[in-house]
Amino acid sequence: MDAAQEAQNREAFRHAVVNTLERRLFYIPSFKIYRGVAGLYDYGPPGCAVKSNNALDSSTLNFADVNFISMVQHFVLEENMLEVDCPCVTPEVVLKASGHVDKFTDLMVKDEKTGTCYRADHLLKDYCKDKLEKEPNLSADKAAELRHVLAVLDDLSSEELGAKIKGYGITAPDTKNSLSDPYPFNLMFQTSIGPSGLSPGYMRPETAQGIFVNFKDLYYYNGNKLPFAAAQIGQAFRNEISPRQGLLRVREFTLAEIEHFVDPDDKSHPKFAEVATLEFLMFPREDQVSGRAARRIAIGEAVAQGIVNNETLGYFIGRVYLFLTQLGIDKDRLRFRQHLANEMAHYAADCWDAEIECSYGWIECVGIADRSAYDLRAHTDKSGVLLVAHEKFTEPREVEKLVITPVKKELGLAFKGSQKMVVEALEAMDEKEAMELKATLEAKGEAEFRVCTLDKAVTIKSNMVSISKEKKKEHQRVFTPSVIEPSFGIGRIIYCLYEHSFYTRPSRDGDEQLNVFGFPPLVAPIKCTVFPLVQNEQYEEVARRIARSLTAVGITYKIDVTGTSIGKRYARTDELGVPLAITVDSTSSVTVRERDSKQQIRVNVDEVASVVKEFADGVSTWGDVLWRYPTHSS
Amino acid sequence: MDAAQEAQNREAFRHAVVNTLERRLFYIPSFKIYRGVAGLYDYGPPGCAVKSNNALDSSTLNFADVNFISMVQHFVLEENMLEVDCPCVTPEVVLKASGHVDKFTDLMVKDEKTGTCYRADHLLKDYCKDKLEKEPNLSADKAAELRHVLAVLDDLSSEELGAKIKGYGITAPDTKNSLSDPYPFNLMFQTSIGPSGLSPGYMRPETAQGIFVNFKDLYYYNGNKLPFAAAQIGQAFRNEISPRQGLLRVREFTLAEIEHFVDPDDKSHPKFAEVATLEFLMFPREDQVSGRAARRIAIGEAVAQGIVNNETLGYFIGRVYLFLTQLGIDKDRLRFRQHLANEMAHYAADCWDAEIECSYGWIECVGIADRSAYDLRAHTDKSGVLLVAHEKFTEPREVEKLVITPVKKELGLAFKGSQKMVVEALEAMDEKEAMELKATLEAKGEAEFRVCTLDKAVTIKSNMVSISKEKKKEHQRVFTPSVIEPSFGIGRIIYCLYEHSFYTRPSRDGDEQLNVFGFPPLVAPIKCTVFPLVQNEQYEEVARRIARSLTAVGITYKIDVTGTSIGKRYARTDELGVPLAITVDSTSSVTVRERDSKQQIRVNVDEVASVVKEFADGVSTWGDVLWRYPTHSS
Repeated sequence: MDAAQEAQNREAFRHAVVNTLERRLFYIPSFKIYRGVAGLYDYGPPGCAVKSNNALDSSTLNFADVNFISMVQHFVLEENMLEVDCPCVTPEVVLKASGHVDKFTDLMVKDEKTGTCYRADHLLKDYCKDKLEKEPNLSADKAAELRHVLAVLDDLSSEELGAKIKGYGITAPDTKNSLSDPYPFNLMFQTSIGPSGLSPGYMRPETAQGIFVNFKDLYYYNGNKLPFAAAQIGQAFRNEISPRQGLLRVREFTLAEIEHFVDPDDKSHPKFAEVATLEFLMFPREDQVSGRAARRIAIGEAVAQGIVNNETLGYFIGRVYLFLTQLGIDKDRLRFRQHLANEMAHYAADCWDAEIECSYGWIECVGIADRSAYDLRAHTDKSGVLLVAHEKFTEPREVEKLVITPVKKELGLAFKGSQKMVVEALEAMDEKEAMELKATLEAKGEAEFRVCTLDKAVTIKSNMVSISKEKKKEHQRVFTPSVIEPSFGIGRIIYCLYEHSFYTRPSRDGDEQLNVFGFPPLVAPIKCTVFPLVQNEQYEEVARRIARSLTAVGITYKIDVTGTSIGKRYARTDELGVPLAITVDSTSSVTVRERDSKQQIRVNVDEVASVVKEFADGVSTWGDVLWRYPTHSS
Repeated sequence: MDAAQEAQNREAFRHAVVNTLERRLFYIPSFKIYRGVAGLYDYGPPGCAVKSNNALDSSTLNFADVNFISMVQHFVLEENMLEVDCPCVTPEVVLKASGHVDKFTDLMVKDEKTGTCYRADHLLKDYCKDKLEKEPNLSADKAAELRHVLAVLDDLSSEELGAKIKGYGITAPDTKNSLSDPYPFNLMFQTSIGPSGLSPGYMRPETAQGIFVNFKDLYYYNGNKLPFAAAQIGQAFRNEISPRQGLLRVREFTLAEIEHFVDPDDKSHPKFAEVATLEFLMFPREDQVSGRAARRIAIGEAVAQGIVNNETLGYFIGRVYLFLTQLGIDKDRLRFRQHLANEMAHYAADCWDAEIECSYGWIECVGIADRSAYDLRAHTDKSGVLLVAHEKFTEPREVEKLVITPVKKELGLAFKGSQKMVVEALEAMDEKEAMELKATLEAKGEAEFRVCTLDKAVTIKSNMVSISKEKKKEHQRVFTPSVIEPSFGIGRIIYCLYEHSFYTRPSRDGDEQLNVFGFPPLVAPIKCTVFPLVQNEQYEEVARRIARSLTAVGITYKIDVTGTSIGKRYARTDELGVPLAITVDSTSSVTVRERDSKQQIRVNVDEVASVVKEFADGVSTWGDVLWRYPTHSS
């Protein structure tokens, strides 16, 4: 099958899935009667049930249903994480400190006549892909060039992007008008807090910052002990320039973020052994660069070989693997891809994305990053409140301490307005950098020194800074913890789950294709249906009796008493992903049919609720149930 | 106790509650390290557990914990409501249709020198209250005048408010500078959707609109049948001018809204009998106007007497009463207050607030309103999509139909630019209004006619409109459903629950007051604690065994193995509202202590988890448990 055919098949598959999802109200394009808003979707009733609906048994107040959010919470609670719930509206100062005000941008170009906005990289990407796919006579050189552009797309500066767009003669897709130069557009929804218009605020682009600013209280709450993790599940916002990829690239979404705070000198994890032997598809940086494919590696091996930076990061990668596959994600279409050096934030120690393959390609659904001490330091600097941890020594220790003393007068003369940035960069050096600088200054009298915040190197002379090591007695160690962050894009995982669960099969008479969502019983929005075979009072009474017994054991169900044919009723609920159907066709025993195998068994009316329950709870598989009951052929 | 003393006591009580809540991280002022933002609060770990934390037993994936949101969902699910989950970001057109863009405002005044903003009514209210409380020599006339101002405060127009503020010489509270005239400030957080700056949007002020715009799909999902209800739980936003009342008046909050759609001709409710005999404090409109106090009325009586407009409204009032009291709200500090005619939206048929008394006075926590067909009509008008229901007749019926035909030419000549509004108002007349207008036109040739959207009456002549009744055969009835809406302010209910649950008692040696949150077991964030009496390996092993057995039955617990005295450990967890404490003081049996009574019983190690479980689930009261086990005196 050639690439074009494959692309077409994927489109057709996606169309079938999305059509079913929208028709059965898993999703609804938001504000549809007003022709919608790009990138905003509602969860309709079955979608809510998959995402966050906790069905309760009304008589006993026992929980009846497991769902997606609860499985995330399970993840959170298994580690005794501290849950917090912060507002979406966030004042500017917080997002200034985190870097979002300055750097959370995409490059945009405008149609010079109509003003319509486009993402610059999208246009360039589309152009290259289109040429590669549709121009058979492309020279090998040209093809290689375009492939190179695609490979480095994320690295291009505003100027480089603009030059390529001009160079290839790319115009606005809708009008063919010429385009402006690219310029950065901040992706946060901006607003104003209070009536004065003087307090800018934003809708949070991630939930993590709410945890970082609370570090001090949470550390105290945890008895001033490390490691500990805090977690937050909530809405986040991203004002996309032109949302594409339907349900995957949206302007408002639910994030679940975990911030695990550890001692930077000890990133071991006590439960690492529990996941170490798990083997799954990993795609390390080196393999990507050298053009190899993703390969199966045991996570224990990956940590031992230094492919994954540390045990804690490895532990969470393993846990995320278990979480996603238990949810129903196909393990062969799940891989952990390491960020390339250029993708990763400069402060990050290591970063892996759980990517799930769907009709849009490989999609980042969970990010697992070692963010080092960046966030806590940034908020310490901006707020003046020390966000640090303490390790008390049982006996005072003699330590060698690095002392960096910038000579402000000399630096001021040399760098004028940039002095502050240079001073900060000097003070921020770690021991290795500082000792290297010291050595160079002693040898040559001056040294090149890179200042990140100026985005250039400056020349430091030996009279501008003194660097030394001093011995001191210390009673405790004070340090900024590192943060390891698994961040779950809930909507994306759910969408991929829908794609991985969806299939079609011919109807009995073969004249149409029927849709099925093969959800695992644990995440199915409704666990079973009850169908009286024909409309008659006796059967309906049995159906009600079964319904009451299902309620008593906390199983969500749907009764369908319409006279529609059983085949049609099966088809309707297969499309909602209901795993079991109970057909009442006698007053003593009933037929239970499993969705995927379509196998049927006979079960006594009094036993049926407990059979459904053990299957829905994942205690038994269908195979377990099958051999215990007589099969039924219709 | 005089009023001043009482106010002081309330302040002191509130101070103690809020202090405990913040110290134990039930709440954290948001972005505290940046000195916070008025009106924004985080839920810390125990607050999250009360609000929405679903503890899961890690081994079996069974739910372990009931909490607030789950109880709301219980409410939702018991009625088979359709849950939806819509975005917070909302395009302007939706909120234009709902009336929020034009009318969701408060009147504001500005300090003329500093620009600081204040709510105009707050300043006037404070002035009046202050005078009444603190000026002993106030004349009876003056006092009566001020009391009258307080009574009609909500009714004052912008001009009237301005005149009073000027008349009383009220100045800016902080600077004593003079104040601007009042002007309306829209309380929605405004933003811009997409990069163009041409699509204004707002953070939703309520969740209800997301349901109304989806009516058509939800009606279809429900098999085109009425009545049905849809529900949504999510964040809502209100950009308060100057938030006061701490945790009660916030800028971002969780709302749970239910929209129950009914046939306007039949607002009976099949389950009304289940609540009809419930008797609780009601405060009908007439009693408020005539200065009587709230009184106990059975909800069945209230509906029968026409105090409450209809059964469905009455049913939800009853259900809300059950919900709040089961949660732990004191039934003697809960009342249902009917809106006065001037408080209610012009379209509402009836409206009742569940008000809970706390240190701030009586606080509206749940609103239960019959909004008639207003919202669906508004969105039908604006979107052009018919949001209606159908009732198919088994046989066609002959009906008399009102036909209103405005003569646009004549209306255009008479009203020019206002023609459209006049036409719409004429077409919107109900049968009674139309027939009255027809009669007047026939008698006098013209009639005064009020046009809401112009906010004035115009003169209609008989050549401007024809009104008639025509007979027609109809196969179905098409109508706009009425909406009955219970709307829960989750944060307010939780805050009131905290106040109603909080008390202090002297420590054993009597030298300090200890704080206790007496949460009902069902909503307590942690169900029990496990304390080894002394630090020793044997006891700690027993504690771990008990912990495992608690996990197995799905109970959240906290182990405290510090050597701190048992009294101090009790005090610490009483302050978190933990209902039961297990002290391990032998290897065969342990002491179980109940928080409020401080009574202690001896229970075998093997039995203790099941005892905790039956108590935590509300299956047994402490009294039930107490007589089955030997008491223990320490």
